[in-house]
Amino acid sequence: MQRVVIVGGTHGNELGGIYLHKLWQTPPAEWSQLPFSVESCLANPGATQACRRYLDQDLNRSFVPTDLNNPDLAAYEAQRAKVLSARLGGADFLFDLHNTTSNMGVTLILSRPDALDDPLTRQLCSHLAQDPEVRIYFNPSPPEHSPYLPSVAQRDITVEVGPMAHGTLNASLFFKTRETIEKALAFLADWHTDKSQPAEQGLTYYHHIENVDYPRSSEGDLAGMVHPHLQSRDFEPLNPGEPLFITFSGETIAYQGSETVWPVFINEQAYYEKHFAMSLARKVTQRL
Amino acid sequence: MQRVVIVGGTHGNELGGIYLHKLWQTPPAEWSQLPFSVESCLANPGATQACRRYLDQDLNRSFVPTDLNNPDLAAYEAQRAKVLSARLGGADFLFDLHNTTSNMGVTLILSRPDALDDPLTRQLCSHLAQDPEVRIYFNPSPPEHSPYLPSVAQRDITVEVGPMAHGTLNASLFFKTRETIEKALAFLADWHTDKSQPAEQGLTYYHHIENVDYPRSSEGDLAGMVHPHLQSRDFEPLNPGEPLFITFSGETIAYQGSETVWPVFINEQAYYEKHFAMSLARKVTQRL
Repeated sequence: MQRVVIVGGTHGNELGGIYLHKLWQTPPAEWSQLPFSVESCLANPGATQACRRYLDQDLNRSFVPTDLNNPDLAAYEAQRAKVLSARLGGADFLFDLHNTTSNMGVTLILSRPDALDDPLTRQLCSHLAQDPEVRIYFNPSPPEHSPYLPSVAQRDITVEVGPMAHGTLNASLFFKTRETIEKALAFLADWHTDKSQPAEQGLTYYHHIENVDYPRSSEGDLAGMVHPHLQSRDFEPLNPGEPLFITFSGETIAYQGSETVWPVFINEQAYYEKHFAMSLARKVTQRL
Repeated sequence: MQRVVIVGGTHGNELGGIYLHKLWQTPPAEWSQLPFSVESCLANPGATQACRRYLDQDLNRSFVPTDLNNPDLAAYEAQRAKVLSARLGGADFLFDLHNTTSNMGVTLILSRPDALDDPLTRQLCSHLAQDPEVRIYFNPSPPEHSPYLPSVAQRDITVEVGPMAHGTLNASLFFKTRETIEKALAFLADWHTDKSQPAEQGLTYYHHIENVDYPRSSEGDLAGMVHPHLQSRDFEPLNPGEPLFITFSGETIAYQGSETVWPVFINEQAYYEKHFAMSLARKVTQRL
């Protein structure tokens, strides 16, 4: 392990990572004691300046390898993806800092199919998830199709922190994110020098099943909202027959699935345009 | 009283009023029983389409009379203000529905200097504020300088509802807003037919003192956040010496004022660009 990168501002209105980047432009003294280099990177300066998620297209959907190799793609983020891929490609570990309007605490998102089989990633996540506010969400995407920024590195974790309205800062979540990264860097240093304790007692994670759209009218307009009973209940079990949505006139729409699921990204602002009201996951606990 | 107007979407990313407008495009059957006309109006269709607060400039700062009379102002919202002023001018009562990322519950904002002396406005607010989730915020602006949309009507209340991230819906707040408007219409009908009960036992309201900016660097950049102790504590007392902000490196900045104040609009997203971290108000209770 030689090079660790911390990325903020992949989405230009998620201010937690953006202001951590500003803080870390003066590297903390402790970083110079680490047995690897650490650098902080602002991913989308144009969108950050505009305080918008993106200018032309979602940067965190712009890293599909065929797109990176297509010189004809001229959108701001398509070009930015090429620049970042060249700059960050090959980094040993990359943390990509995000915020969400969903009540997700600190969620470590793993998107490589083999992430949980990789001893370092697995041990690091297990170490961080000893904190009950930290959870692991496994949403695998084949590397040849992965659209995500952190896929350019050798290993990565997307750190999703909320609830926080985009374009705002929340001090508690800001410091919680900083603490999470500090803990991760300390663990990586111990791992690097063989001092890490493989203290894993087993691992609980949430395995992505599917995304669920809002109810819609025949014209495709929103026809309802997340039900009040479900709002802010990310990572809590949802059983068949329990309330999922409510229409604008007040009719409850129940969850029709056949198994208990654990919703995440409930009512995330940026996913309205992607037609996701939430994602459903299965809770998995692996014993050693 | 002949004409009541309910306005949504003055800001195009405040979805509560926008989806109430969609609901009310089919007027509720009860409205036809009222002794006055009720119409619902979508104020900023362009910004609503883009799901942004505004396209060119804040519509709710575009109603200064000299601007309405200036044909050279060609921004989208400058023109929209003229159209709305012609369409809505002279309405007897106007409710303008807004959402905020601040924890303000249902806040009735009064911006006419004489609003609290007007028996109808006063009695209506007193009636609605019997609900402990409903509060009155008095922020007077001289009519000749008032930039606010509802200033075009004879009487008005801005209904500010939160906390809700812009670009999202929250079902509980959606139905709470609908209930507030239904109660207000019922009260206006009773007033119109002399059936209203002047049950006012006194009135508590929050009188605007000043807006407070975030701490800033010498270059004008944000240098801190709302302190965790103050976050979401809208309408709670803030005493001299208590935490106000916290810097990115973790230093607390205390409130330096000489009197207890009641902050509102704490950490509202749209006010970052206006350089307001919050507004401070004085709590006033008038006995009859």
